[in-house]
Amino acid sequence: MRAAKIQFDGSGSLRHLLTLERMPPGLIHEILDTAEALAAATGGKVKKLPLLRGRTVVNLFFEPSTRTRTSFELAASRLSAEVVNFDVAQSSTTKGETVLDTLRTLEAMHCDLFVVRHRENGTPEYLAQHAGPGVAIVNAGDGNHAHPTQALLDVYTIRRHKGFDFSQLKVAIVGDIAHSRVARSAIHALIALGVGELRVCGPAALLPDDLDPSVAATSDLDAVLDGVDVVMMLRLQKERMRETEVPDEADYHARYGLDRRRLTLARPDAIVMHPGPMNRGVEIASDVADGPQSVILEQVSNGLVVRMAVMARLVGAGNLAS
Amino acid sequence: MRAAKIQFDGSGSLRHLLTLERMPPGLIHEILDTAEALAAATGGKVKKLPLLRGRTVVNLFFEPSTRTRTSFELAASRLSAEVVNFDVAQSSTTKGETVLDTLRTLEAMHCDLFVVRHRENGTPEYLAQHAGPGVAIVNAGDGNHAHPTQALLDVYTIRRHKGFDFSQLKVAIVGDIAHSRVARSAIHALIALGVGELRVCGPAALLPDDLDPSVAATSDLDAVLDGVDVVMMLRLQKERMRETEVPDEADYHARYGLDRRRLTLARPDAIVMHPGPMNRGVEIASDVADGPQSVILEQVSNGLVVRMAVMARLVGAGNLAS
Amino acid sequence: MRAAKIQFDGSGSLRHLLTLERMPPGLIHEILDTAEALAAATGGKVKKLPLLRGRTVVNLFFEPSTRTRTSFELAASRLSAEVVNFDVAQSSTTKGETVLDTLRTLEAMHCDLFVVRHRENGTPEYLAQHAGPGVAIVNAGDGNHAHPTQALLDVYTIRRHKGFDFSQLKVAIVGDIAHSRVARSAIHALIALGVGELRVCGPAALLPDDLDPSVAATSDLDAVLDGVDVVMMLRLQKERMRETEVPDEADYHARYGLDRRRLTLARPDAIVMHPGPMNRGVEIASDVADGPQSVILEQVSNGLVVRMAVMARLVGAGNLAS
Repeated sequence: MRAAKIQFDGSGSLRHLLTLERMPPGLIHEILDTAEALAAATGGKVKKLPLLRGRTVVNLFFEPSTRTRTSFELAASRLSAEVVNFDVAQSSTTKGETVLDTLRTLEAMHCDLFVVRHRENGTPEYLAQHAGPGVAIVNAGDGNHAHPTQALLDVYTIRRHKGFDFSQLKVAIVGDIAHSRVARSAIHALIALGVGELRVCGPAALLPDDLDPSVAATSDLDAVLDGVDVVMMLRLQKERMRETEVPDEADYHARYGLDRRRLTLARPDAIVMHPGPMNRGVEIASDVADGPQSVILEQVSNGLVVRMAVMARLVGAGNLAS
Repeated sequence: MRAAKIQFDGSGSLRHLLTLERMPPGLIHEILDTAEALAAATGGKVKKLPLLRGRTVVNLFFEPSTRTRTSFELAASRLSAEVVNFDVAQSSTTKGETVLDTLRTLEAMHCDLFVVRHRENGTPEYLAQHAGPGVAIVNAGDGNHAHPTQALLDVYTIRRHKGFDFSQLKVAIVGDIAHSRVARSAIHALIALGVGELRVCGPAALLPDDLDPSVAATSDLDAVLDGVDVVMMLRLQKERMRETEVPDEADYHARYGLDRRRLTLARPDAIVMHPGPMNRGVEIASDVADGPQSVILEQVSNGLVVRMAVMARLVGAGNLAS
Repeated sequence: MRAAKIQFDGSGSLRHLLTLERMPPGLIHEILDTAEALAAATGGKVKKLPLLRGRTVVNLFFEPSTRTRTSFELAASRLSAEVVNFDVAQSSTTKGETVLDTLRTLEAMHCDLFVVRHRENGTPEYLAQHAGPGVAIVNAGDGNHAHPTQALLDVYTIRRHKGFDFSQLKVAIVGDIAHSRVARSAIHALIALGVGELRVCGPAALLPDDLDPSVAATSDLDAVLDGVDVVMMLRLQKERMRETEVPDEADYHARYGLDRRRLTLARPDAIVMHPGPMNRGVEIASDVADGPQSVILEQVSNGLVVRMAVMARLVGAGNLAS
């Protein structure tokens, strides 16, 4: 709730990206439109745009994540920003420096945008509350709270395949809903965009208590898939397996894995999504992951332009105008 | 002593930066003047200058230090240099290669400037003795010996606040003086610039035996702070606590920590400095660290332009001329 | 064998660099010629060429190697490519993602060239088989199989010293031949270029069973060195010492180390090579490593331009033409 407010400045402009909860749908579509424009502009061989020239982007990752970090790193450098990877495992935070002193120190080095991943819910919000003027925070995943750029790339991918009117769409999200910041942000984004019907599915122990009342939750995967336009599979964190009633990976796959038979329950033109990295044979069968309905690699490509769009919006405005 | 000579070439020009011991005050002021000029030139939004275009800077850190490494990395890339972070934890030195072979190998890849941090005193000096023609070494901290760019940013910060005449200034340095390369280099710089009075303070076990006779040493913090213009607090390395008579952090803070009451003993316009990262509540109280007399974050910003000035002087001359 | 075919496209052009086995000698000389041209073009102070502008190179290292990674990183950035170091120790592959999914993910981020090092033989070949259109794989060392850019820089170094006609040359390779991808690729390159005589030498347990019949193998170092034009010493991997009949490093040096006395057995103008990092006093005496016949640091410099030549050939062609 608080994060939803803090990310706007006094005049209602987006200053940080912390969460998609209660994000105005018009703003989401604007960001996706910018991503479309950037995709068109960077389609050729020379991919670099000058929108962030002279700006410095810091990847401030308190949790390791090469994949997301690389996506942000490439997005920033394709906008001509300097990029610094601040490897916190080796940093002063291990010497007892507070996360806020780390932010202040990097701000004092004239860094403009911080891409923050942290194990604890609310760290990006906390940093945004204390960020200096002109400094932007992008949440790259905090605890099980939010992962807004992932959700933006998800709805961007859906919009490209299914069009602008989300009210006609049925979407299923399957897996460890309770612990997934990907699921939480996707639910916020889809509700914001007025999705027709949203269903979540997973082992009972992995379904959250605090779902929006408009979302249907169940452990019956076949029922959930019936007639949907979009299936989003989540990565199973193997350490969660113990919490479920499921004895092993093969059993998880049998009950909650997406295979070819099950996919036929969805609409014939349904798209299959996964945020990666995949556990093939666990939450998703390989032939589905690599099949004609899969848009999993498109999601990765879309992630780049969506992150470029977010960064250009937050700190590139001056350069856009000039 | 040797380091003080080796860093100059035959014609008396600075070729490496190893120590500030016996550095001519005119040369220190020249470097600080260049830093002022760079600060003016990079104040705008597009911060990149072409002084090191085509040059390659290697961060050769045998000790982890994200903060100092990042400062050098940003300084170098804002001068348009290529920057390579040579992570020695993963390198051939762990396979038995000598530090000199590592230098020679990187020289053979046409690297121009090496920023060296090493646990052992004298490693940067040793590398400077063996560096090829045109190759410059910058000491980024060796053992408890020297950290000259930190001292340059310290005196740059003092000069901006207190003016060019150091002979009127009283400066206190407080903490683990004996093991601090920051203190040692600051003492060299302040003596070189003709500081009026220099006092150091810390637990008896953390005061060095070999202080310059002009420096007053004591364990009485209140006395040391009386009427000073500048207070430099040092980071307490917690593993040193055992060596002192001090039982714990709270006790250290009570005896050697800078808090608001103590700060009133200094001149009302005294500035408070700290090289970071801080142990808040140990060597410095949070309200002093964040208070109006603190210039701690200015030090970080100043570190960038001072390091740019050093690198431009050592390897950017040709580009400056052309 | 398979790798030798897969690296060419349908029209016989080099698309990946996996191995030098059965590489046409004309193609090897073409790559070396390009390296010569790049060395000439980058001899001046501003070393950057635009051949890979807009391209992204990924260092995909599943084994740590700062030295080779840095060589590729500098080579790529001197061709104006974006470079991403994908640190696999911290990546999703530790979360169970397959190596192929890692490739596909980075391809989806529009990465153009992958520099791959992996503990297992055949990983670069496997990735090349599955690489998307326009994507190139460069083998930076797989298991004990191949290290083709090392071999190219070796023959480039020999060609610069001994001329284009390899048929007049006698070459000795000394050390752990059986486990060395450097030796294997060097043998392939030298045979491809029609070397006059090729001899390998090492402890019996470290000589391979499957040598090309044209190669002479022995454990008598003095005999091997007799009259050779080139001596290539290999790094002794200390964990291999147990497999030999040799009790310790001093004994290894006595039997298989290159010292000044032994070097007099070679031709007076023989050159001494080593891929680095060296164990001084084990496989090579320090005065030989640093002596007038040593070209070891030239090899490092040559590695840069050879790697630039390989990358320019694989993905820079369009830019070359335009």
